[in-house]
Amino acid sequence: MATVEELRGYFESKTEEILADWKAWLGFSSISTDPAYAKDCEHCAQWTVEYLTKIGLKAQLLETPGKPVVFGNIPAPKGKPQVLYYGHYDVQPVDPLEDWISAPFTPELREGRLYARGSSDNKGQTMYFLKALERLIKLGELGCGVTVVLEGEEECGSEGISEKLVEWAPKLKSDVLMVCDTGALMPGVPFITMGLRGLVSIEVKLGGLHHDLHSGALGGVVRNPATEMARLIAALHGPDGRILVPGYYDEVKEFSSDDRALANAPWPPAEVFKAMVGVEAKGGEVNLPPAERRGMRPTIEVNGLYSGYQGPGGKTIIPSTATCKITSRLVSDQNAERCLTLLEDFLRSKAPDGLEFSVISKHVGGRAVALSSTDPLISRARKVLDQLSSAKTQFTWEGGSIPVVERLADVAGATPLLVGFALESDKAHAPNESFALSQFELGFLYASKMLEELSAPS
Amino acid sequence: MATVEELRGYFESKTEEILADWKAWLGFSSISTDPAYAKDCEHCAQWTVEYLTKIGLKAQLLETPGKPVVFGNIPAPKGKPQVLYYGHYDVQPVDPLEDWISAPFTPELREGRLYARGSSDNKGQTMYFLKALERLIKLGELGCGVTVVLEGEEECGSEGISEKLVEWAPKLKSDVLMVCDTGALMPGVPFITMGLRGLVSIEVKLGGLHHDLHSGALGGVVRNPATEMARLIAALHGPDGRILVPGYYDEVKEFSSDDRALANAPWPPAEVFKAMVGVEAKGGEVNLPPAERRGMRPTIEVNGLYSGYQGPGGKTIIPSTATCKITSRLVSDQNAERCLTLLEDFLRSKAPDGLEFSVISKHVGGRAVALSSTDPLISRARKVLDQLSSAKTQFTWEGGSIPVVERLADVAGATPLLVGFALESDKAHAPNESFALSQFELGFLYASKMLEELSAPS
Repeated sequence: MATVEELRGYFESKTEEILADWKAWLGFSSISTDPAYAKDCEHCAQWTVEYLTKIGLKAQLLETPGKPVVFGNIPAPKGKPQVLYYGHYDVQPVDPLEDWISAPFTPELREGRLYARGSSDNKGQTMYFLKALERLIKLGELGCGVTVVLEGEEECGSEGISEKLVEWAPKLKSDVLMVCDTGALMPGVPFITMGLRGLVSIEVKLGGLHHDLHSGALGGVVRNPATEMARLIAALHGPDGRILVPGYYDEVKEFSSDDRALANAPWPPAEVFKAMVGVEAKGGEVNLPPAERRGMRPTIEVNGLYSGYQGPGGKTIIPSTATCKITSRLVSDQNAERCLTLLEDFLRSKAPDGLEFSVISKHVGGRAVALSSTDPLISRARKVLDQLSSAKTQFTWEGGSIPVVERLADVAGATPLLVGFALESDKAHAPNESFALSQFELGFLYASKMLEELSAPS
Repeated sequence: MATVEELRGYFESKTEEILADWKAWLGFSSISTDPAYAKDCEHCAQWTVEYLTKIGLKAQLLETPGKPVVFGNIPAPKGKPQVLYYGHYDVQPVDPLEDWISAPFTPELREGRLYARGSSDNKGQTMYFLKALERLIKLGELGCGVTVVLEGEEECGSEGISEKLVEWAPKLKSDVLMVCDTGALMPGVPFITMGLRGLVSIEVKLGGLHHDLHSGALGGVVRNPATEMARLIAALHGPDGRILVPGYYDEVKEFSSDDRALANAPWPPAEVFKAMVGVEAKGGEVNLPPAERRGMRPTIEVNGLYSGYQGPGGKTIIPSTATCKITSRLVSDQNAERCLTLLEDFLRSKAPDGLEFSVISKHVGGRAVALSSTDPLISRARKVLDQLSSAKTQFTWEGGSIPVVERLADVAGATPLLVGFALESDKAHAPNESFALSQFELGFLYASKMLEELSAPS
């Protein structure tokens, strides 16, 4: 049983070796959402199986209707718990590529941060777990079973794994579902994520015009798809930031005042927040504090909007089409299928007469995850995290989604445990994604001590 | 004095030669709005000077702070009027390039139409005027003076020529300002354009975020620039299609019921209109007929709108910025500078707290042109046009703008005469722009007979 200090010493002595494996993994452009990168995803999955085998797991690729899942296993010693670790080897797209300082798939260490797409989300956070596991196996100190499941479609809806969960139920059976795909609100402070939001997405189009029209000749005569798309989007929210889709709040659970107090406690001061993201926390429902708007309330966000001419100068056209990519985050106990239907019906009902409305694609991601602050597992995690630094462990209801977590926990019969060390400054999903070595080390300490804690009698 | 039949015979015998010059001119990618094409614009202007010289004008390039103006002159015989012809050698951008069936600057004749960027707007319509002029000069039958002014910035605001107009006033002095940059509502029917709309433009941006943010982690926390830009655009119009910018209608002149009846008369039936453009005429102010909405009322149109991710699949971001290109068409007697200020002030006042609003560019195009249906020049043009075919001459208040026409007529002391044969099906400003040979021939007949008419005593 190593102390935290001994673990720090181990980490520092092995940094080069850890970085080498981490960088090798980041070299794969495993962008799952764009079919152009299908081969890169396959190569990445293959490398991951080889790595798991090398460190001592029985590993293989499990085929799905989508991208394969990397599966690795070490059975639990008799009477000991089985820990299921879930992560993903796929990453977000990289555009705008010209904004990257170093190439997204050529990892570069600068000022204590490793820069690359996926360096944080989720290859970085999974690598510190795997490095902790590798050390315990090598030393013969792993006291529980570990099953590793790394999917390749987390960034595009987790469809492949979702279709296989029921079939794989026997091999997923476990006691605790560890996930390190969540984050912390500030560096050096451990955070337990108490909730994740659900997700649905829809992409819609307005058109019907044979082609771009001359905005002089026909301006004021036909409806302008760009203007009408703007009106459609504007109809989604009231001036108070509330969603206007009828029925959208029907199943939204009110959180207890204790939970709300826990959520609001670690929120950074306004000036710190503004320095971090560039703007003030003025989005969403105006009457709620930001931490509640983030993790305890549903949102509908535009992710992409496109219509007409974008080149230099101007072009006097009525654009022939306008498209909009929308995602909605859901909270407990919203039914994702129902919400998507409500959203689609609303957009359709508000679409203007005189243009053609169509749905390009739509997708149900998953339901929200909500943990109980009274669960004994949460207390054990808190005890581990409190040892890692002088900072007190905080609780957060995160705004993000890991679509498959709710179903995976259900099928595995496991209690989810969500602790991660990603920061907003990592720029996950944006150009110049990075992960601080200091946060990686904290993750390594946590994973090492948590696996030790879970091996002990509860 | 050739009859219309003789002119038709001449045109048919010379079609190959006419097409050769027309195609050569269309070969220049004279896109004025994009600095990448500056050299092509220069080459195009140079070719045009050479062509005017070849057919018998004293021609030269006149420098401006922007692109040069092609200037050609034949002085009027004593006691005869001077006709000023205004056109432009620049063209609109070509994107999306992949939608073109043949390359935009490699003219191709298909089924009686010449396809190329500028084939209609304005190289095609100017070429039939020049071909009529060439014939009259060759035969020694030109009975009036002709001054040709072809600018290179009509598609991007006419700034260069505008700055030089006062300086050039002596050489622009004339009696009639002929412009063939207008259109007809149906093929084979002559149209006199009684009005042009004015134009102002503005491009605005919402931002302030350091980078794209994770739409889960910060959705509901910060304002989404795409959503807020949509709300800003939506605020421009009421549900009845009226512009909500305060004071925007203050100077809008009400047209007489006679003029309104003339404007409404030639409007195509609803099913013909829909077949032509793909959608119904349901834009603009709901309580007015389409012809009035087109030519007698101001509009504010979105020409381009961009925010966030547009690639395949999805990307769960809050886009760091949203930009919008807007143009507004003005009618008599709206002051363009005042309207642009009102529009900018309105957008600024509605911009959301919590994001940064900025104006990327803004530009005053020009005021509207309004002709009097009782002017004797209009009666003479109608007499000429009525000879060309069995179709009765129609009157239209066009929605488009030729920013410099109002000021040019003023400086030259000339009465504008706007007759053109472009059709909506020409797809000016869109991919696969073309011009029908039959409409080109009609333009040739009109220009030939109109120059003859203007040489006779009025």
